[in-house]
Amino acid sequence: MPVGDFPFPHMNPVQGIRLGTASAAIKSPGRKDVMVMEVCEGATVAGVFTQNAFCAAPVTVSKEHLAKSPARYLLTNSGNANACTGDQGYQDAVDSCERIAELTGVDASQVLPFSTGVIGVNLPMDKLLNALPEALSNLSESGWQAAAEAIMTTDTRPKGAAATFEYQGATVRVNGIAKGSGMIRPDMATMLAYIATDATVAQPVLDQLLKEAVDSSFNRITVDGDTSTNDSCILAASGKSEAPEIISADGELYSLLRDAVIAVHKLLAQNIVADGEGATKFVTVAVQAAENREEALRVAYSVAQSPLIKTALFASDPNWGRIVAAIGYAGVKGLDDKQVKVWLDNVLIVENGGCAESYSEEAGQEVMNQEEITIRIDLGRGEVAETVWTTDLSHDYIKINAEYRT
Amino acid sequence: MPVGDFPFPHMNPVQGIRLGTASAAIKSPGRKDVMVMEVCEGATVAGVFTQNAFCAAPVTVSKEHLAKSPARYLLTNSGNANACTGDQGYQDAVDSCERIAELTGVDASQVLPFSTGVIGVNLPMDKLLNALPEALSNLSESGWQAAAEAIMTTDTRPKGAAATFEYQGATVRVNGIAKGSGMIRPDMATMLAYIATDATVAQPVLDQLLKEAVDSSFNRITVDGDTSTNDSCILAASGKSEAPEIISADGELYSLLRDAVIAVHKLLAQNIVADGEGATKFVTVAVQAAENREEALRVAYSVAQSPLIKTALFASDPNWGRIVAAIGYAGVKGLDDKQVKVWLDNVLIVENGGCAESYSEEAGQEVMNQEEITIRIDLGRGEVAETVWTTDLSHDYIKINAEYRT
Repeated sequence: MPVGDFPFPHMNPVQGIRLGTASAAIKSPGRKDVMVMEVCEGATVAGVFTQNAFCAAPVTVSKEHLAKSPARYLLTNSGNANACTGDQGYQDAVDSCERIAELTGVDASQVLPFSTGVIGVNLPMDKLLNALPEALSNLSESGWQAAAEAIMTTDTRPKGAAATFEYQGATVRVNGIAKGSGMIRPDMATMLAYIATDATVAQPVLDQLLKEAVDSSFNRITVDGDTSTNDSCILAASGKSEAPEIISADGELYSLLRDAVIAVHKLLAQNIVADGEGATKFVTVAVQAAENREEALRVAYSVAQSPLIKTALFASDPNWGRIVAAIGYAGVKGLDDKQVKVWLDNVLIVENGGCAESYSEEAGQEVMNQEEITIRIDLGRGEVAETVWTTDLSHDYIKINAEYRT
Repeated sequence: MPVGDFPFPHMNPVQGIRLGTASAAIKSPGRKDVMVMEVCEGATVAGVFTQNAFCAAPVTVSKEHLAKSPARYLLTNSGNANACTGDQGYQDAVDSCERIAELTGVDASQVLPFSTGVIGVNLPMDKLLNALPEALSNLSESGWQAAAEAIMTTDTRPKGAAATFEYQGATVRVNGIAKGSGMIRPDMATMLAYIATDATVAQPVLDQLLKEAVDSSFNRITVDGDTSTNDSCILAASGKSEAPEIISADGELYSLLRDAVIAVHKLLAQNIVADGEGATKFVTVAVQAAENREEALRVAYSVAQSPLIKTALFASDPNWGRIVAAIGYAGVKGLDDKQVKVWLDNVLIVENGGCAESYSEEAGQEVMNQEEITIRIDLGRGEVAETVWTTDLSHDYIKINAEYRT
């Protein structure tokens, strides 16, 4: 039950980027579950990956390949994560790259593999390899939505975002697609995202831009606090637009690109949260007046990950006591509870260590009945603000995750 | 739906300790919701309290009183936590102590107040104060079970544990009662526990013993990761047994008492977890071969608090991939995934970075079908072991917590 208004947008082609899909029947027959993104020669490609100590074989291989060669093909399968699959899993990831290399004439190290789905089961390699020619045969600059659909697992909708800007008469486009709904929190959980622009961006600038964009988007969302073995986010710059090359992280053109790339990342991240497993609410937790970034995030995540708050959100219950308790156990040293203020949207609910005098249950209830809610927390200590996005915790979350594998 | 076999035990009196109950109709009429524990003159009393920055008024008052005078009366109400209630809440806690003092002739600072229930609503003081004479009038050495029932909130059963030992012909008893089911994790969550012994124990020894006992029991359990504003655990030593006074934390008598006190704490803690909100499984997470205690606990809690693992437990699904993912994101620096082993009870499921060769789905399923399950994790790094206890995450957890206040 997704929330929020995130229709798949119209996406103009990003020149130099083509996408193709195929059906390999990895988990269930019929649906497309293989996606290949082709990046033109001369493009720059940056990647960030999960911090999980049990990172999946495709993550290991993608990192190795990305360090070695300019990437030309990104191969994704859904339905099987190829994670915790030992030496065989590593070999399977390498083999799938080699097959793409054979079919396209690039070096195997120019292929990056990605997998998402069930953990601990070896990839059905015959099925996967047999589907690759089909995916390559339908590569198209207009394949974005089909690609977004092919990488879905428990997602209920394909996720895309696009931005465009003009610079000195040249149009620059940024397109992005992503998947992920359960297992989402900082460090990027079971989440795959592919963002591409036709701007021309030097490798170090692209690397830095991607880190910044991920940090303000995918690293600020949480559904259930779990993070995964397979998260990957790729940013490719094809260099096909007329705008000049960006060789340093400053200037007007860089600033325009940065804004567009971050906007696409944020929309994708918010869409993932809003499609969180069993979500019925889209919740923004905005912490302000913190002494530093770390404590702002501690409080934000403490609130955003509290099962008691999330079940109260599901019940549309303005149970501010649970919010206060979660702020209290976030571990902010020397926090003065008398200085803390909490709002539901614009309704002040907590001040002076207790319920605000102006608060009425009716006003709180009105906010809680909404599908989109902002919990705003003022710590009264400093000037740092941080925002994270989350969902409620519903019956359907249990249902989806108790029944996912069986 | 509680799990495990935790009947309320037969409890012999602990001389010097009497308990009384009354009905104040704080949340709903009829049931007993006020409990007074009387501690004889000359007893020593130790307490540990929540670390939550928004600690409740009764916690503040109890700490102040305990630092000032030897405690004689412990007053508990259920149905209202008197938390986040500002200056009025503090005054109410003080007033309730004063009323007990008037009725019994002790100083108000010899009364410790405790509250548990809904947060953010002022205590109905008339109702509470009017019920105090009744509670005092039925003080009895055999009031343990009635007391355990009066302090319940969402608990489905009263919780008690008892231990007895002999020392040089003298019998020493340890009795304990506790409440708490949601909001439980280290730092003691919405949990109240009262343990009493007739041993004679010097104050510094009692303080140290309580800290150690809490650390190996109530600080090792987690239901939903939330902690509360009201947690308190009190250990009273009446000094009425024939055994000699314990003036230092060594020797045979101390060792016997320590074992008995810790055993009672652990039983109460496990009972609380087994009565976790909506629990259908009682799960022990045992981490071994860690380099140090901190990383052992990080891994244990990462697994014990993962909603994905907890829903898999609810579904009796041996989804070891989720266990491996949670170990991976616990943040243990330099963890070698190839060295990690995981067992469900005695079934080895993970080794060499993937599924164990000897593993069969049937064997895993058999363990998962049980009501009590141990997840054992060997990190292959050192010699430190830690154990925590938790539950699954079920439909009923959502139901209970989405409907608690309304």
